[in-house]
Amino acid sequence: MNEIENIRVNASESYDVSIFRDGLDSCGEMVRKVLGKCRLAILTDDIVDALYGARVMDSMAAAGLDCIRHVIPHGESSKTIGNVMEFVNLMADNHFTRSDAVVALGGGVPGDMAGFAAAVFLRGIRYIQIPTTLLAAVDSSVGGKTAVDIAAGKNLVGAFHQPSLVICDTATLETLPPSVMRDGFAEVVKYGVILDEKLFEEVSEPPVKDIVHVIAGCVSIKRDVVAEDEFDNGRRQLLNFGHTVGHAIELLSDFRISHGEAVAKGMVRAAMMGPVMGLEDCTGAIESVLKNYGFDTDCPYGAEELYYAALSDKKRKGDSITVVLPRGIGNCDLFRLTGDEFRLLLKKTENQI
Amino acid sequence: MNEIENIRVNASESYDVSIFRDGLDSCGEMVRKVLGKCRLAILTDDIVDALYGARVMDSMAAAGLDCIRHVIPHGESSKTIGNVMEFVNLMADNHFTRSDAVVALGGGVPGDMAGFAAAVFLRGIRYIQIPTTLLAAVDSSVGGKTAVDIAAGKNLVGAFHQPSLVICDTATLETLPPSVMRDGFAEVVKYGVILDEKLFEEVSEPPVKDIVHVIAGCVSIKRDVVAEDEFDNGRRQLLNFGHTVGHAIELLSDFRISHGEAVAKGMVRAAMMGPVMGLEDCTGAIESVLKNYGFDTDCPYGAEELYYAALSDKKRKGDSITVVLPRGIGNCDLFRLTGDEFRLLLKKTENQI
Repeated sequence: MNEIENIRVNASESYDVSIFRDGLDSCGEMVRKVLGKCRLAILTDDIVDALYGARVMDSMAAAGLDCIRHVIPHGESSKTIGNVMEFVNLMADNHFTRSDAVVALGGGVPGDMAGFAAAVFLRGIRYIQIPTTLLAAVDSSVGGKTAVDIAAGKNLVGAFHQPSLVICDTATLETLPPSVMRDGFAEVVKYGVILDEKLFEEVSEPPVKDIVHVIAGCVSIKRDVVAEDEFDNGRRQLLNFGHTVGHAIELLSDFRISHGEAVAKGMVRAAMMGPVMGLEDCTGAIESVLKNYGFDTDCPYGAEELYYAALSDKKRKGDSITVVLPRGIGNCDLFRLTGDEFRLLLKKTENQI
Repeated sequence: MNEIENIRVNASESYDVSIFRDGLDSCGEMVRKVLGKCRLAILTDDIVDALYGARVMDSMAAAGLDCIRHVIPHGESSKTIGNVMEFVNLMADNHFTRSDAVVALGGGVPGDMAGFAAAVFLRGIRYIQIPTTLLAAVDSSVGGKTAVDIAAGKNLVGAFHQPSLVICDTATLETLPPSVMRDGFAEVVKYGVILDEKLFEEVSEPPVKDIVHVIAGCVSIKRDVVAEDEFDNGRRQLLNFGHTVGHAIELLSDFRISHGEAVAKGMVRAAMMGPVMGLEDCTGAIESVLKNYGFDTDCPYGAEELYYAALSDKKRKGDSITVVLPRGIGNCDLFRLTGDEFRLLLKKTENQI
């Protein structure tokens, strides 16, 4: 293992995010140090299991931690309450107690599901995140948001439940298909736009030189924002830049458009809304970096469709909707709009694409 | 409305439990005062809906609170994740937001389910409890434990989520079948045994004179215990008196033995364990009060069956099991035992019945 970056997250429970290249075989030791002796239930998908399942199980066993494993088919369509309940029943059948723990191994889908299972099994047991995608490393594995999708929308059922440890081995990212890696970069660019101009510049011309450093930067930003607003009532909504329209696009596409692609489209749309509201125009800068990563930033849906799909987004409060708009690169702000105002903004930016 | 008892509960969120006779038609006003203007999703069962659904809806409407209603079949077998998801989907389809709220109207089943739905929908919205059974009034509607049953056992999936208000109109208890009312008295007797000898004496010879006062007494005890240990890692386990064996009995009977009957049997069994551990023998006193309420306190299951059923109880931590035993009436204590010790206690008390 080379250089290791440890980011300490202070939420309602504190935990470390450990980022390094090439040290997955030490994960058992790391988990043992944090959790002590216990049993582990690993949730992963078929692709990740084939690549890393045995290595992780072996490392846990070597550290004296007994494991059971549950493998789901890969992809967003697995993120259902039914699959969570199967996993929970497996733990119950194995007499798991409140001293035992869950391990999420994989991308955002196993991560969100395993976290939710840990949040609700016996009303809450501990869990560990081992993200193996860039998106999970910089986003879903930090901050304690767990969820499943329901018919009416993505992530509409979930819980806030902080992990006890996040272990990120960047070597696992090297086996990702380019499109999945790119998905993660949409979120990395997002962190730059909302709060860190230097990060935005560092990643503006791929390939990125020091991915451990970039991930650590993103996690630090998320850590700082979440620390101020763990339960997502205020400042944390900054992280939602590109996501209000992005989630609507995912929903309208029936999740055929990936999260990263949808967020890329959503960020460009939000950037366009800025000047309509009298803010600086950052559309060109954002669009150009996203194009460097090969994103198609056009939106295939009309303003009305987007409006109604966005209505079901859980970030809404009462009749208002909060959007995140850039005042400049590294400087975003929250704007609380009425439904009608948001609808008009969508309309006014419809023909600019 | 006559005299009203308000018990203030200070948990991670504070709320009132309002107990009175005959004032259900004011519930809308009471809810409006606490939640402000919002929309409500009521979860209730078919029996309670027929009795009180329209009155509650009318009162909410009169207070300017729009309602939707979801009615489940009565009984423990409805307490499934599937029914919770149906309710959650109804809220999503009606574009409920984080400002809106859930109302649990009925006994422990709608209460636990509605609370869990509120805990996980959009990662947590507010909810109100309107208990219409004695059991729900003194137990499940206070303390923030929410849950559903799974194949492996009762309440194995759930969350800690505090209500914003509990409204208890004792007039609703007057429509209860005697067996359901009796179920509640098992819990009332429990409060007496664990912490309040005076309460134990007050309820020892039915009928109880002042039910508002008795409920307020039980809620106060629960409030004090929960305040010290919201997340059930220590002292809160006192409330589990009679429940370790009780839950095992419920499970073994496939829930044909009701919660109250099972807890009554479980309390007597726990009382028998006391002298085996060298404690004062309270079995006679507890058994005699329970018999005054018409409880059959015999246990139809063997020690080994009970042991294995109790193993899946979520209160367990690692290899140990915590049991609550009386040192005297109004004075119970926690005893942490190994699985083998507990098994032996079950064995030694098997032939005393």
